[in-house]
Amino acid sequence: MARSRETSVSGDRQGGVADSRFFTRQGPFTGQALAEAAGGTYQPPQEREDTEHTYGGIGPLQSAGPTEVSFLDNRRYAPLLDGTQAGLIIVAPAFAKRVPASSAAIVSSTPYLAWSRVARMFHPAPAPKAGVHSTAVIEEGAVVPASCEIGPFVVIGRGVEIGENTIIGSHAIIGDGVTIGAHCRIGAQVVVSHATLGDRVTLFPGAKIGQDGFGFAVGPDGFETVPQLGRVVIEHDVEIGANSTIDRGSVQDTVIGAGSRLDNLVQIGHNTRLGKCCIVVSQAGISGSTELGDFVTVAAQAGLIGHIRIGSKARIGAQCGVMSDIEAGADVIGSPAMPFREFFRNVATLRKLSKKSAGGGQDGSGKDGD
Amino acid sequence: MARSRETSVSGDRQGGVADSRFFTRQGPFTGQALAEAAGGTYQPPQEREDTEHTYGGIGPLQSAGPTEVSFLDNRRYAPLLDGTQAGLIIVAPAFAKRVPASSAAIVSSTPYLAWSRVARMFHPAPAPKAGVHSTAVIEEGAVVPASCEIGPFVVIGRGVEIGENTIIGSHAIIGDGVTIGAHCRIGAQVVVSHATLGDRVTLFPGAKIGQDGFGFAVGPDGFETVPQLGRVVIEHDVEIGANSTIDRGSVQDTVIGAGSRLDNLVQIGHNTRLGKCCIVVSQAGISGSTELGDFVTVAAQAGLIGHIRIGSKARIGAQCGVMSDIEAGADVIGSPAMPFREFFRNVATLRKLSKKSAGGGQDGSGKDGD
Amino acid sequence: MARSRETSVSGDRQGGVADSRFFTRQGPFTGQALAEAAGGTYQPPQEREDTEHTYGGIGPLQSAGPTEVSFLDNRRYAPLLDGTQAGLIIVAPAFAKRVPASSAAIVSSTPYLAWSRVARMFHPAPAPKAGVHSTAVIEEGAVVPASCEIGPFVVIGRGVEIGENTIIGSHAIIGDGVTIGAHCRIGAQVVVSHATLGDRVTLFPGAKIGQDGFGFAVGPDGFETVPQLGRVVIEHDVEIGANSTIDRGSVQDTVIGAGSRLDNLVQIGHNTRLGKCCIVVSQAGISGSTELGDFVTVAAQAGLIGHIRIGSKARIGAQCGVMSDIEAGADVIGSPAMPFREFFRNVATLRKLSKKSAGGGQDGSGKDGD
Repeated sequence: MARSRETSVSGDRQGGVADSRFFTRQGPFTGQALAEAAGGTYQPPQEREDTEHTYGGIGPLQSAGPTEVSFLDNRRYAPLLDGTQAGLIIVAPAFAKRVPASSAAIVSSTPYLAWSRVARMFHPAPAPKAGVHSTAVIEEGAVVPASCEIGPFVVIGRGVEIGENTIIGSHAIIGDGVTIGAHCRIGAQVVVSHATLGDRVTLFPGAKIGQDGFGFAVGPDGFETVPQLGRVVIEHDVEIGANSTIDRGSVQDTVIGAGSRLDNLVQIGHNTRLGKCCIVVSQAGISGSTELGDFVTVAAQAGLIGHIRIGSKARIGAQCGVMSDIEAGADVIGSPAMPFREFFRNVATLRKLSKKSAGGGQDGSGKDGD
Repeated sequence: MARSRETSVSGDRQGGVADSRFFTRQGPFTGQALAEAAGGTYQPPQEREDTEHTYGGIGPLQSAGPTEVSFLDNRRYAPLLDGTQAGLIIVAPAFAKRVPASSAAIVSSTPYLAWSRVARMFHPAPAPKAGVHSTAVIEEGAVVPASCEIGPFVVIGRGVEIGENTIIGSHAIIGDGVTIGAHCRIGAQVVVSHATLGDRVTLFPGAKIGQDGFGFAVGPDGFETVPQLGRVVIEHDVEIGANSTIDRGSVQDTVIGAGSRLDNLVQIGHNTRLGKCCIVVSQAGISGSTELGDFVTVAAQAGLIGHIRIGSKARIGAQCGVMSDIEAGADVIGSPAMPFREFFRNVATLRKLSKKSAGGGQDGSGKDGD
Repeated sequence: MARSRETSVSGDRQGGVADSRFFTRQGPFTGQALAEAAGGTYQPPQEREDTEHTYGGIGPLQSAGPTEVSFLDNRRYAPLLDGTQAGLIIVAPAFAKRVPASSAAIVSSTPYLAWSRVARMFHPAPAPKAGVHSTAVIEEGAVVPASCEIGPFVVIGRGVEIGENTIIGSHAIIGDGVTIGAHCRIGAQVVVSHATLGDRVTLFPGAKIGQDGFGFAVGPDGFETVPQLGRVVIEHDVEIGANSTIDRGSVQDTVIGAGSRLDNLVQIGHNTRLGKCCIVVSQAGISGSTELGDFVTVAAQAGLIGHIRIGSKARIGAQCGVMSDIEAGADVIGSPAMPFREFFRNVATLRKLSKKSAGGGQDGSGKDGD
């Protein structure tokens, strides 16, 4: 059966930005208005009449047209400036002169932040559709303000308290006694139990928050489960990615500090404490009772053992294996973790020695000749 | 309370193949018919009457009986040929003579493919049970053909279009505007939003497709979310594993090329593009805006940073950490990634130097003597 | 809108243990009674009247008060003994004399086990609330004893058999023909298919059990799926973490041995067999057809390739990459895996050579000077 849908599936690899099936759109806006919202400086086009010109949407440099806004944030894509048709381009000061003569620009020392605000102007986050779906189960004593959106098949337990304008997605389960702040977005198929959430918290689909930590003692007949009697405390403005897991504490709380951002498939063990504005990238894991300061970055697939302390503003590289405390502000990578500089020096040293060993007639084929 | 179920749980470690509680069964079939379906050559048994002999099912070499079919694909299991009772064995030409005298064989240069076809003959994939479960919620304007199977508690959003003979498993959530092709199998508790799926796509239980990518800018008062305005495009014949996560693009689409196979707990970042027939094994992660050619293999727990290009047919080893572009056809492993040969040479060199250091009377106990 | 909830979210980082919104409480108990339950020796306080003193709950050393019980298990927290107000402290014999004069103690050679029993006395696991929620879908022929608790939106397939006193959490899906033992706790949004579970099995929220393994053959037109015709057998007393994935076997069963404990986001491939009382920590993955003996530990983020054997009591370190068989009792770490001692000797050797290379005036800046 030939399907006309086929082309739309495999065909257009450039298209699809802000597809009207998925996103609402505001506008159009003038370049001046956008520059103001972005907190940047408007630079009119050199070779185009600018009067009454407005912009109706956004797009990548490769495909944006004369009535669309684009941006350059990553230096490696600078060559795309030469061929772009974008009518308005957000750039850092260093690239202001490379903007094509027919394009206007918004010049900003924080072009990615400026972009985020311009994109949000065209496509504001959807407001809650106030109301409780007829299939939702809301137990006795739960407080659910009329401004909230409660999706199909949601379960809200006894004594739950939810703040104003919060969205609870389809199939989400909010366990007995949980409190959730205002303006939160709880994704589809999230489970939250034994937890307290601040305002403006976003949990992406499938995140599991508050289940038992991994705790057991060796008994005479096998392992015996240690009761997990703490909670999860998620402070204001935290985001937690899809299918991530955050265990509740055993004898104190697991805490995710205000403003922190966790990506997908991240694991946070029991009693772990993150400070403010930490970043934990996809598939990283932090073991139990470890404490992070503020503004710590944990890159993808990194792992931290339990019971250690990571100082504020430390940066832990991708796939790093951290087995001991890390000082504030340190940059580490490798498994076991070491300073970035040391890691790459080691890589270079080993390569050199390996080449020498192979070049000197010895066996470097991967078999140990000793 | 003694339970008769107990033995079936802990007892029989060989059994259980094609348990009739879980799998339907076709047949029996003759060896000739099976060889034809498999695209292999039938080799009758040397010491057994072959007339009217038929086979009723399949099993592993260790436990298959005279009316069952088995196979040898992995050289390390060749010794099992000696003791097997299997009536018919699928083997590569190199093993044709090692088949027991009482067993027939199907000889094939692609024995695993042959096996897949024989197993499918006995146990074809179940067809959709056409109909919509009474508990499913289907929003206005959604197109759901009568040939589809829609499970309990499914939610299908506004304007969704689904092709013929597609199965939507229990509790799956298909967001507004999503299109799904024909003959797809959407697993239980899958969430799909902001996405377009081709035909014959399989999503395993718990996969989360189309949520916001991990994008935020540093603002004066903390992080500010960057709107994620792209889609996820999943081309024909793609399979995505249980609890995997695929973020939608920010200013372009995230694309999973036709025929690609992703395993469980895989993470795909925003704007990432996979070519045709890529393989991504369990717990691997690909960061945002990275592009893979066709037939790229990413082994288990490997990680790729963002904004790089991986050439077609490159193979990235397990736990590999890829920080820069990889040429077409290259085999890399290690963190940071390097050619296989170099990696194992490094391992050998370091072992040799370490032994020398320890043997020469220096401290090799794991403390740095400097 | 100022919310009084705010303080409770961001304020108290010490509190929250056994919050009455989430946990029921038994007691109070005397120190003697608790010591007996714990299997330890009661040591009365040196400087406090002990008559009729009872304890009403538990807490961490930092915040527990005179009517609360605490414990010291990890040597690194021993300094907390000096300042604690806890009325009763569970300690190993080595710390018995360091308990403050105003505190009683329970002295145990297995303090963590003792703690687990004391905590369980105060906060026993909640019993099932017998009954089937009105929204649950139970298909024909399923056996669900009246003692079970079946939550909202649960789906129980045809021919399913469940034992006494088992809890099936909200939105869990039990596929056709699955058997589940007595006293099991199946978490919210779990999916189980093609599987047999013993007694006292706990599956945490979002775990996905029994989906197809990752099996396909290369055909002339792309990959062809190999039918996955085995089951998952989960023996008694197994626990499996949140969002973990266990694929069913292809031609034999995937088996999780009695008493094993798997953490969150763990991947178990098809045909894999774990012996009794194995431990698999978060984000570790075990590839297809690999066999583990009994009491094997696989630490966080470790990966095992397929078709290998791991001997009983082997310990595989965090982030370890195991490419070949491991002997019983071995301790390995690194990628590729090697004995602990060798790994740390290598780390020290490389550090020394790198320093020498840098110190000798050569380029150690991370660029390869060759």
